[in-house]
Amino acid sequence: MVARDASVLRNMKMSDSNMLGWAKDLFPIARSLTGNGVRQTFDYLKGINPEVITQSFETGTHVFDWTIPREWNIEDAYIEHVATGVRYAEFKRNNLHILGYSLPIDRHMDKAELLPHIYTQEDQPDLIPYVTSYYKDRWGFCMAHDDKQTLPDGEYRAVVKSALTDGELIVGDAKVQGQRDDEIMFSSYICHPSMANNELSGPVLSMALLKYVKDHYPKPRCSYRFILVPETIGSIAYMSRHLPEMQDRVVCGFNLSCVGDERAYSHVESRYANTLADKALCAALIGLDNVRTYSFLQRGSDERQYGAPGIDMPLCGFCRSKYGEYPEYHTDADNFNVVTQAGLDGAFEVMRSVIDAFEIGLYPKVRIKGEPQLGKRGLYPTISQKGSYSSIRTRMDFLAYADGSNTLFDIATLIGAPLSMVLDEARIMLEHDLISCDSNKNAL
Amino acid sequence: MVARDASVLRNMKMSDSNMLGWAKDLFPIARSLTGNGVRQTFDYLKGINPEVITQSFETGTHVFDWTIPREWNIEDAYIEHVATGVRYAEFKRNNLHILGYSLPIDRHMDKAELLPHIYTQEDQPDLIPYVTSYYKDRWGFCMAHDDKQTLPDGEYRAVVKSALTDGELIVGDAKVQGQRDDEIMFSSYICHPSMANNELSGPVLSMALLKYVKDHYPKPRCSYRFILVPETIGSIAYMSRHLPEMQDRVVCGFNLSCVGDERAYSHVESRYANTLADKALCAALIGLDNVRTYSFLQRGSDERQYGAPGIDMPLCGFCRSKYGEYPEYHTDADNFNVVTQAGLDGAFEVMRSVIDAFEIGLYPKVRIKGEPQLGKRGLYPTISQKGSYSSIRTRMDFLAYADGSNTLFDIATLIGAPLSMVLDEARIMLEHDLISCDSNKNAL
Amino acid sequence: MVARDASVLRNMKMSDSNMLGWAKDLFPIARSLTGNGVRQTFDYLKGINPEVITQSFETGTHVFDWTIPREWNIEDAYIEHVATGVRYAEFKRNNLHILGYSLPIDRHMDKAELLPHIYTQEDQPDLIPYVTSYYKDRWGFCMAHDDKQTLPDGEYRAVVKSALTDGELIVGDAKVQGQRDDEIMFSSYICHPSMANNELSGPVLSMALLKYVKDHYPKPRCSYRFILVPETIGSIAYMSRHLPEMQDRVVCGFNLSCVGDERAYSHVESRYANTLADKALCAALIGLDNVRTYSFLQRGSDERQYGAPGIDMPLCGFCRSKYGEYPEYHTDADNFNVVTQAGLDGAFEVMRSVIDAFEIGLYPKVRIKGEPQLGKRGLYPTISQKGSYSSIRTRMDFLAYADGSNTLFDIATLIGAPLSMVLDEARIMLEHDLISCDSNKNAL
Repeated sequence: MVARDASVLRNMKMSDSNMLGWAKDLFPIARSLTGNGVRQTFDYLKGINPEVITQSFETGTHVFDWTIPREWNIEDAYIEHVATGVRYAEFKRNNLHILGYSLPIDRHMDKAELLPHIYTQEDQPDLIPYVTSYYKDRWGFCMAHDDKQTLPDGEYRAVVKSALTDGELIVGDAKVQGQRDDEIMFSSYICHPSMANNELSGPVLSMALLKYVKDHYPKPRCSYRFILVPETIGSIAYMSRHLPEMQDRVVCGFNLSCVGDERAYSHVESRYANTLADKALCAALIGLDNVRTYSFLQRGSDERQYGAPGIDMPLCGFCRSKYGEYPEYHTDADNFNVVTQAGLDGAFEVMRSVIDAFEIGLYPKVRIKGEPQLGKRGLYPTISQKGSYSSIRTRMDFLAYADGSNTLFDIATLIGAPLSMVLDEARIMLEHDLISCDSNKNAL
Repeated sequence: MVARDASVLRNMKMSDSNMLGWAKDLFPIARSLTGNGVRQTFDYLKGINPEVITQSFETGTHVFDWTIPREWNIEDAYIEHVATGVRYAEFKRNNLHILGYSLPIDRHMDKAELLPHIYTQEDQPDLIPYVTSYYKDRWGFCMAHDDKQTLPDGEYRAVVKSALTDGELIVGDAKVQGQRDDEIMFSSYICHPSMANNELSGPVLSMALLKYVKDHYPKPRCSYRFILVPETIGSIAYMSRHLPEMQDRVVCGFNLSCVGDERAYSHVESRYANTLADKALCAALIGLDNVRTYSFLQRGSDERQYGAPGIDMPLCGFCRSKYGEYPEYHTDADNFNVVTQAGLDGAFEVMRSVIDAFEIGLYPKVRIKGEPQLGKRGLYPTISQKGSYSSIRTRMDFLAYADGSNTLFDIATLIGAPLSMVLDEARIMLEHDLISCDSNKNAL
Repeated sequence: MVARDASVLRNMKMSDSNMLGWAKDLFPIARSLTGNGVRQTFDYLKGINPEVITQSFETGTHVFDWTIPREWNIEDAYIEHVATGVRYAEFKRNNLHILGYSLPIDRHMDKAELLPHIYTQEDQPDLIPYVTSYYKDRWGFCMAHDDKQTLPDGEYRAVVKSALTDGELIVGDAKVQGQRDDEIMFSSYICHPSMANNELSGPVLSMALLKYVKDHYPKPRCSYRFILVPETIGSIAYMSRHLPEMQDRVVCGFNLSCVGDERAYSHVESRYANTLADKALCAALIGLDNVRTYSFLQRGSDERQYGAPGIDMPLCGFCRSKYGEYPEYHTDADNFNVVTQAGLDGAFEVMRSVIDAFEIGLYPKVRIKGEPQLGKRGLYPTISQKGSYSSIRTRMDFLAYADGSNTLFDIATLIGAPLSMVLDEARIMLEHDLISCDSNKNAL
């Protein structure tokens, strides 16, 4: 496996925000909660953005209520039909064939003994499911249910060349310090083997957003934090070390998961659906096709941890098609038929507009009393007739609600205009010195 | 009448929380706002729960804006057709035949003079309606409209052997002192003659709940107050004496009326639909069949008094089928075809779950940061595959909202789970020391 | 024009609150933002209510972000077909024929040069549209589109005898000082030429309301301010001089526009739909036919100015059929086929009920604890039978919410009763000394 991954790394293209290219490069790596796949993935990400820094937690370390597990590495795995020598569920063909965290084994057994160790998804019988057993010792394979049904009778040899050893769990982050300590936070995963949407779309979007911030805002108003962790245990470990700082600084966060397909835009609300992140995402999704809102009760990704009592990060989940809601989820069909450049770009635009809003200054406030006389600035029709007002509705509505008490997100929602259009109006009004935009509410 | 009621009392069975049996025992007694029927009823209730204590208000006493009326007792009443000697509207056959608080009379008159004194329910012509004239002097009878139509012509003798005398109005309560002074209050009526749902179901449910508290919580966390009064004047009189104490102590109250049939579960909201009682009842009704919510504008029972300005008890109304909403209401058809043990049991379970929530401790709070690792405690599936999460949704959702700011009622509503299921999760989590449950919000 | 207007003034009837008569008198005057038409209009209004006082702003004065324009006066205007001598778009036939604020011109030109100066409403080809060019120098005429299509070929002479000169912009107000400084404010326009609903209905309603206050409340509890201005620039100018006082005093205001037809009752909400005026108008419209609510996003009249950030008047818009929503709007069809006495009276009743509520005292509060015993005062049925309660529902509901925390408007909305019925109950309860009505919340 090491040899194979080395060749993968050699082939990587470091194209500027080529999200799809990055994802394709990272696809073959056999990631898990821990192990060399995670290291290789971080090496690649550091190549894109050298700000990415990793940290390590030793096996056995207590992190909140949890304990860091042993490190798992896998070299090979397959099932061999002894009589014919035919191999099934070969790890080297598809790394989903191995049950995540499978114990090593190399033993002959009859088919009856083997079968309970083969996991399938009966309702999608032609797909290899993604199954793990992180916190209980088991060995096993994953196969298409149809293939499992056609296994010949006879003796088998089950081979898993894995190692579960004391080692480390690795998490990473990248930080950008702005003029203010207020942080916008993004979190995603690096623990999934070869699946494209869940979960390479998240890390590559993160990397593209980081590049965007660096390229477009060399002296940004706000600070940014990009977190990349193995799911659940990783975010818990990360927070066990950084929570007070995060609670001090983070004002708006997004858990990025499954952000690469073209079918929907999804908002997984925070615990009370009331954070700045919820408002930002609502606004950023106005006018897009097939927007879906899921309550916190339908959470499933690290919103669970970031939104837990005592943690209370102002964070919500952002997906294109939500995990669990698209048929290829957690199977080998989650590939580059699902994830496309257009899909990733759509997600990028949404998050970018949120970043732009923070950088413009969240609270626009008109500098004069009453409506400004836009006409003398060429910003208003000079003929007044039925219907002439409607063409500049968005502008007038923007100004009406730019009273220093509303964020740009609030205004988009109040006036029902896409966030990007609201940001355009804000920029024009700033240019004409008609508004100020402050990061604080009701600033003078 | 005294003789008859004595025989009724002799036949009473004091079975433990045999709500239906109690109601059947109490059914024949001729209750009204005042009089011997009320005394006999309280005697029976004291037999079930000796904590029941009565208090007396003398005729003429001012209670808030009202004045205690004269005491009314009735021995017999009927209409006799003089020519044939046939009697109609005989009190001894059905005590609904007499207009409540009817003046005494014994006089011959022709049919034309008699008829205006006979009250009927034209839209339910085969039923005897329940009619009263508490606060204006009248004499009268109640009959099925069909029967009134067939009264023969000729002379009649109208006989009402009633007495309106200076006496007393009796109210009762039973109190259980808990570790805290915070009181859960229940109120119901003892002023209705022979009708089962309205209003024997209320008092017998009260008595069963009192027994439940005593039996299951020998040292209860909260205090309890069970009030039994004649409607309107009784609750006003009771509060005229106890209001400051009630305003100090009562945190959650229910007016119990018509809680014995099997057709619906009804919530009559408080004045602003925002009391702890409203929230408790909403939660306790989740998952039940045919739940109906009525606004305060549809009130009609003593929510009127407990919810009046200046009183402001945190109380709402609980019914199975609401008074006025079931066809047998306030007629002689309100009998044990309407009220059943299953109906009473259903109401009991609802109120019991509210009591249990208070006794568990209203505000659960997770004791650790982030999600607890349920797997190591055997409380979480160890295989992670599509769909494996949904089976423990309620548990995870309970924990997510157990942040010390939500009551058990709030959580049930937030996560859409029946209160009983939420209470079960609370008990399991308490057992594993994963939460604390305090009676106060955000306790440490 | 002066001659014509003089004759108009001679024919005026000063009938008491003859709103339709006033409007008909005022109809022929050629009003605009500025000029003699405004002066003549104010002279007439002062004849109705001598409290009306005008103020002047010189051309060139800065008012907030705006500048007072030159004064525009017009004597005559027409297009003459040279070959035939036939005149079109004659101002003397209809003052809508002239583009508002048209520059003077007297020049021969061919049809091709003329046509771009003729404004029409293509979707209503038989009507003369009302068009203005207040803030950009243009000359032009308005015609029915059908008529424009039939203009013969050939040479034309375009004549506009107008003058744009340094002068003044005139605004007016009328104030009534009450026992309290809290002001109820009404604002409407005097800048529209011959159109009846938009905008003579507003000023005549204002005048009738002022007369009502004077006649019915000689020592009013509240103060009143009636503002009459040319739209936009007029309200901005007025506020540039009076804003601090208005912000101190005004507690509830209405922009009156298009209040004369019979087709609907419309509420144009304030910026956050949460002012006392919004609540008042909601309540006053309960039970009326065809009530329409428009959000602030659909504003278009001086709600724009009064509701702008930094101004924040607690004001909403009141119309019968809203401007822009009825077909005759801003055309010569907006005449006395649209505006009727019944239409004006309907609007008057709505505003009158709001005034009455303020004068009764906005916060009714029951003086006793629990429900009062209405029966002993003859205010409650003495027979209690199914259904007997419903007949006095409004009374009981009024009392239930008369807790000192709700305005009369809140109560109407909470109990779903027309404001006028709520006011009647308040008066009855006051008569029986059962409530007090204070202008302040929760007064003792």
